[in-house]
Amino acid sequence: MIVIMKPGATEKEVDAVIDWVHTHGQKTHVIVGAEQTIVGVIGDRRMMPTHQVERMSGVDRTVPVMHPFKLASYEFVRQHTTINVGDLTIGGKSIVVMAGPCAVESREQILESAHAVREAGAQALRGGAFKPRTSPYSFQGLGREGLEYLAEARAATGLPIITEVVAPGEVELVSQYADILQIGARNSQNFALLHEVGLIGKPVMLKRGMMSTLEEFLMSAEYILSAGNEQVILCERGIRTFENYTRNTLDLNAVPILKQLSHLPVFVDPSHGTGRWELVPPMAKAAVAAGADGLMIEMHPHPEAAMSDGNQSLKPERLKQLMTELARFAHAADRTCGVEATL
Amino acid sequence: MIVIMKPGATEKEVDAVIDWVHTHGQKTHVIVGAEQTIVGVIGDRRMMPTHQVERMSGVDRTVPVMHPFKLASYEFVRQHTTINVGDLTIGGKSIVVMAGPCAVESREQILESAHAVREAGAQALRGGAFKPRTSPYSFQGLGREGLEYLAEARAATGLPIITEVVAPGEVELVSQYADILQIGARNSQNFALLHEVGLIGKPVMLKRGMMSTLEEFLMSAEYILSAGNEQVILCERGIRTFENYTRNTLDLNAVPILKQLSHLPVFVDPSHGTGRWELVPPMAKAAVAAGADGLMIEMHPHPEAAMSDGNQSLKPERLKQLMTELARFAHAADRTCGVEATL
Amino acid sequence: MIVIMKPGATEKEVDAVIDWVHTHGQKTHVIVGAEQTIVGVIGDRRMMPTHQVERMSGVDRTVPVMHPFKLASYEFVRQHTTINVGDLTIGGKSIVVMAGPCAVESREQILESAHAVREAGAQALRGGAFKPRTSPYSFQGLGREGLEYLAEARAATGLPIITEVVAPGEVELVSQYADILQIGARNSQNFALLHEVGLIGKPVMLKRGMMSTLEEFLMSAEYILSAGNEQVILCERGIRTFENYTRNTLDLNAVPILKQLSHLPVFVDPSHGTGRWELVPPMAKAAVAAGADGLMIEMHPHPEAAMSDGNQSLKPERLKQLMTELARFAHAADRTCGVEATL
Amino acid sequence: MIVIMKPGATEKEVDAVIDWVHTHGQKTHVIVGAEQTIVGVIGDRRMMPTHQVERMSGVDRTVPVMHPFKLASYEFVRQHTTINVGDLTIGGKSIVVMAGPCAVESREQILESAHAVREAGAQALRGGAFKPRTSPYSFQGLGREGLEYLAEARAATGLPIITEVVAPGEVELVSQYADILQIGARNSQNFALLHEVGLIGKPVMLKRGMMSTLEEFLMSAEYILSAGNEQVILCERGIRTFENYTRNTLDLNAVPILKQLSHLPVFVDPSHGTGRWELVPPMAKAAVAAGADGLMIEMHPHPEAAMSDGNQSLKPERLKQLMTELARFAHAADRTCGVEATL
Repeated sequence: MIVIMKPGATEKEVDAVIDWVHTHGQKTHVIVGAEQTIVGVIGDRRMMPTHQVERMSGVDRTVPVMHPFKLASYEFVRQHTTINVGDLTIGGKSIVVMAGPCAVESREQILESAHAVREAGAQALRGGAFKPRTSPYSFQGLGREGLEYLAEARAATGLPIITEVVAPGEVELVSQYADILQIGARNSQNFALLHEVGLIGKPVMLKRGMMSTLEEFLMSAEYILSAGNEQVILCERGIRTFENYTRNTLDLNAVPILKQLSHLPVFVDPSHGTGRWELVPPMAKAAVAAGADGLMIEMHPHPEAAMSDGNQSLKPERLKQLMTELARFAHAADRTCGVEATL
Repeated sequence: MIVIMKPGATEKEVDAVIDWVHTHGQKTHVIVGAEQTIVGVIGDRRMMPTHQVERMSGVDRTVPVMHPFKLASYEFVRQHTTINVGDLTIGGKSIVVMAGPCAVESREQILESAHAVREAGAQALRGGAFKPRTSPYSFQGLGREGLEYLAEARAATGLPIITEVVAPGEVELVSQYADILQIGARNSQNFALLHEVGLIGKPVMLKRGMMSTLEEFLMSAEYILSAGNEQVILCERGIRTFENYTRNTLDLNAVPILKQLSHLPVFVDPSHGTGRWELVPPMAKAAVAAGADGLMIEMHPHPEAAMSDGNQSLKPERLKQLMTELARFAHAADRTCGVEATL
Repeated sequence: MIVIMKPGATEKEVDAVIDWVHTHGQKTHVIVGAEQTIVGVIGDRRMMPTHQVERMSGVDRTVPVMHPFKLASYEFVRQHTTINVGDLTIGGKSIVVMAGPCAVESREQILESAHAVREAGAQALRGGAFKPRTSPYSFQGLGREGLEYLAEARAATGLPIITEVVAPGEVELVSQYADILQIGARNSQNFALLHEVGLIGKPVMLKRGMMSTLEEFLMSAEYILSAGNEQVILCERGIRTFENYTRNTLDLNAVPILKQLSHLPVFVDPSHGTGRWELVPPMAKAAVAAGADGLMIEMHPHPEAAMSDGNQSLKPERLKQLMTELARFAHAADRTCGVEATL
Repeated sequence: MIVIMKPGATEKEVDAVIDWVHTHGQKTHVIVGAEQTIVGVIGDRRMMPTHQVERMSGVDRTVPVMHPFKLASYEFVRQHTTINVGDLTIGGKSIVVMAGPCAVESREQILESAHAVREAGAQALRGGAFKPRTSPYSFQGLGREGLEYLAEARAATGLPIITEVVAPGEVELVSQYADILQIGARNSQNFALLHEVGLIGKPVMLKRGMMSTLEEFLMSAEYILSAGNEQVILCERGIRTFENYTRNTLDLNAVPILKQLSHLPVFVDPSHGTGRWELVPPMAKAAVAAGADGLMIEMHPHPEAAMSDGNQSLKPERLKQLMTELARFAHAADRTCGVEATL
């Protein structure tokens, strides 16, 4: 950390800063500039209450040198992490596609979806049983009943299932059914929930908040990792910008940046990321070209009758076609995509 | 709701939309334009899954006519709501000031704070026992112990206390101590938590999310109201913008707009809203001039030693001086401010 | 400036950075940290091509210590600047109100407006002759003819006039008529235009760009100042945020921050800043409470027939009433507002 | 256009709206809803001053049905436009790559760059002679001298040249040298400049403003088209978001959306779009996968000595390698990329 003093800060003020740093067990190094003095702190600012020094007399501001996340950083592991879910390897050379409806609506719907997902060549089934909705009057999901249907769909197709958990009190229930737990964008800074999924032994897919910076996103991952769960998958799903033609703006820059900053696998969800089904294929291909380790794609057997987010769901035949197209882009990147990967 | 068809939509496509609306028990009215046809839906879209019709063939988009919130709307009540906490009336002619430290750090700190708050003329004591922090390595609050100290501070000064709750499982505990429960900005779309505080019989101060639109903010209030709790106080606390000189950008436009759209009392938190103590006095005065019903102000007896957010906390003497200044602006608005109000 | 090296940067890489700084005539000071080394540069980074060093091997990033603006900074002058326009003092104890229609539409309209502005107690007349419009099909202003009408309105009422200039080639023409030239928000980074108005001897009101940070805003002022024109007035007029209830989000935080960072007078335009006339009175009062030196308010004798921005214009009688209300808030701030100030 | 009346609007107010519409030569159709009445306007709102009706008594707001742009819309042409520059076809099956330094710094630098660009297989040379810089103290470009050097580089390599114009008064000069004129992001709403380049007979590459919505971007194109110049190329170059790890956030969603809304060719500039050279290759590939018609890539023979934006420039050998990689992704999209296209 660097402490930048105000122009005209007194020697006494500088000394007080130095004392404060020493009190916290770190060393200092002072540079007297033409107009301003700076105090370099040699040590780990993550263990210091930096806002205190910012309030000291004569201090202008502090500048961090290191990233605030540690367990999530690439430097901590120095290789890319892979996560296994049954036979499936996430974060390896083959790009993994998870697909399915936004919400589990009925036993028939999720079974039909699961078969369509498997037939298209995708490798996991998504579907929400607990749905966080912006309106209290909207469909909130089938709850435990939805989890039962998901389990049945897994039994019928062999596909692992990924589903969302929205409250700390439901983590235990959901982890009895799910192969991968999902934390949604609106809960990306629900620290109580992050801590709770950090205590279980199952992979967690963490979605980026709609307004999270990548540093904040990795700090949310740090919450899960620091509680003991090392199986975290990052998922870019669109941020909020001034563009109103789309629901969100899928930020593909996140892919190469996160691969650079962190060792964790990086997925992309072009369905929520754009909110329009016709933009899903081009953005899914672009995600592969940008280096994503996997994709989350909404598919609904009958999108025009979906109980949520039908507008961003592909039909089964379009998903199947997309899988073929994705394979071509994966090859251009010397990777494979979808079930072909496991052949 | 209005359904706008694409240019060139066929008669068959328009008919399908009409049928869909009728199936959902609403009436339609069609306008054939020069290039595009629109279908007006006569009825309440809040009860319809509008995303379904958006996915139908030939449909360009839908446009809502009514606001999505109902119980929170001014039209629903047609007068401004007041909320009583002991002798204190929130939302009336007198502007209420709540002050205190960001976090409860020790018994001594909160007792000293409480006395300073009362002496300055503010009317309620704030202090967090459960702290949502962006880093898992930061101070997370004293928990139940902090609640005990708050209760002791209330007993010593007579000030009602407001404190944050961060997880559904802790609502019962916190409401045993708090006079007003607070939902923080990062939990503004934690729907499970909103629902839970909607089930209790105590006032809830709901802070606006850092990236929430006012419509989303009111939809979060709607969650609490629709669960049965009518005592909701709205609090603007800064949004995220591109400005990086301040931590957040306090959005005072929210004050007159929320007073226009909703019947609920509107507070402003200039401390979190700016993140810099020297901006708190001018923005507090501006909040009063804009029509706020109350203020949340961070005060710490020793800001340079605070365990969180010391940078945005006023010292006791500065709070006292500010209360005097605020009274002048309140009078200019034909209102009163602080303890003078109850004289 | 501080140069932060990457973890693991070699001694050779650090030496290369030191050499580069010395080549540019500045001194260095090196701090070897636990994980990362930093190179402090003692001197003025404004005179160095900092992006070059950011590209050097082993460099992580650079951090500025000083603000990039100099002539616009408070430190440069160490007192608040006042600007005189005839008898009017801008930036002094009295708050100045400029009012009038968005666009000059006809001789009758601007004369009627000018009389209403004077009668309400405002001190300058605004009106656009050259209008930058987002659509090429919208009314673009009366041009030179509009300038003639403004001059006539000045002659009839004694009010100084402020009007916008949109192209470098028109600066000479507009400055023949205007008492104050205005640079609009969309031209806030039109550097050719900023340079050109820096060459004339008349006050310039510079509006903040809709997405400008305050540092960028002050850098635009720096363009004008560095070309030789010291009479610059800053005007906050709303930034773009995610809120769509209003056209823009008036950022009143800008007022105390700009007064802290700069010596230049600070105005607020609540009409463009909100885009809704009913929000103009509360936000105008809040601007006064926040410390603004003046206000720009749209008033139109017949807003429902205005050729642009009628939606944000006050009627004459509402302006007159607002002037009375503003005086009360100005007194609460120990200032005066409007014509009373000059009595 | 649809006019939505407020709840409780009177019959008289609705009639006044109807009269206003009729006065402007359009037809109306009224729908009386459960709570609110709407007035459908049958005709072209682009020719109506819609803000006037928004100010009328009883009116809540208006909703556009059609896009505000016309000449730029896909519907207007119903096929994708191609633009020829010498032998080069822009907007066709082959993806065009333009490369070169941010600024022309010297005769040697631009000649060396031009040869490297040709050798890498890119098809046009970029380089700025007039540079819009946020600081008045930064290098502002060589001006006319830079244009001469560009012409010499063209003569030496056969590459067409693209260069920026920053002021209406310089359009004539720049168009004497350039094969394609560029309008930079900060001038995307400099309407006087847009109009001026609309009067010439050369292709114009229009960069998206850092905060422009796609509708605003297309309205800027409309300015050029409506002045008579049909050769407009759109270029996405990054928008401003809350992410501060990169200078801008490249918005690849813009590619499929613009191809859907407009007939104009769409380019992507991953260099300015990210501001970091190591992100250029993955984002360039992603742009190709998303459907871009071309790329603008910064390359500098000696990036660590560049006078501007060296941090985002590729070295010649990295550009050459990227061209090979891009060809693979182009083939996956059934297209070609770079010089191979013309073989």
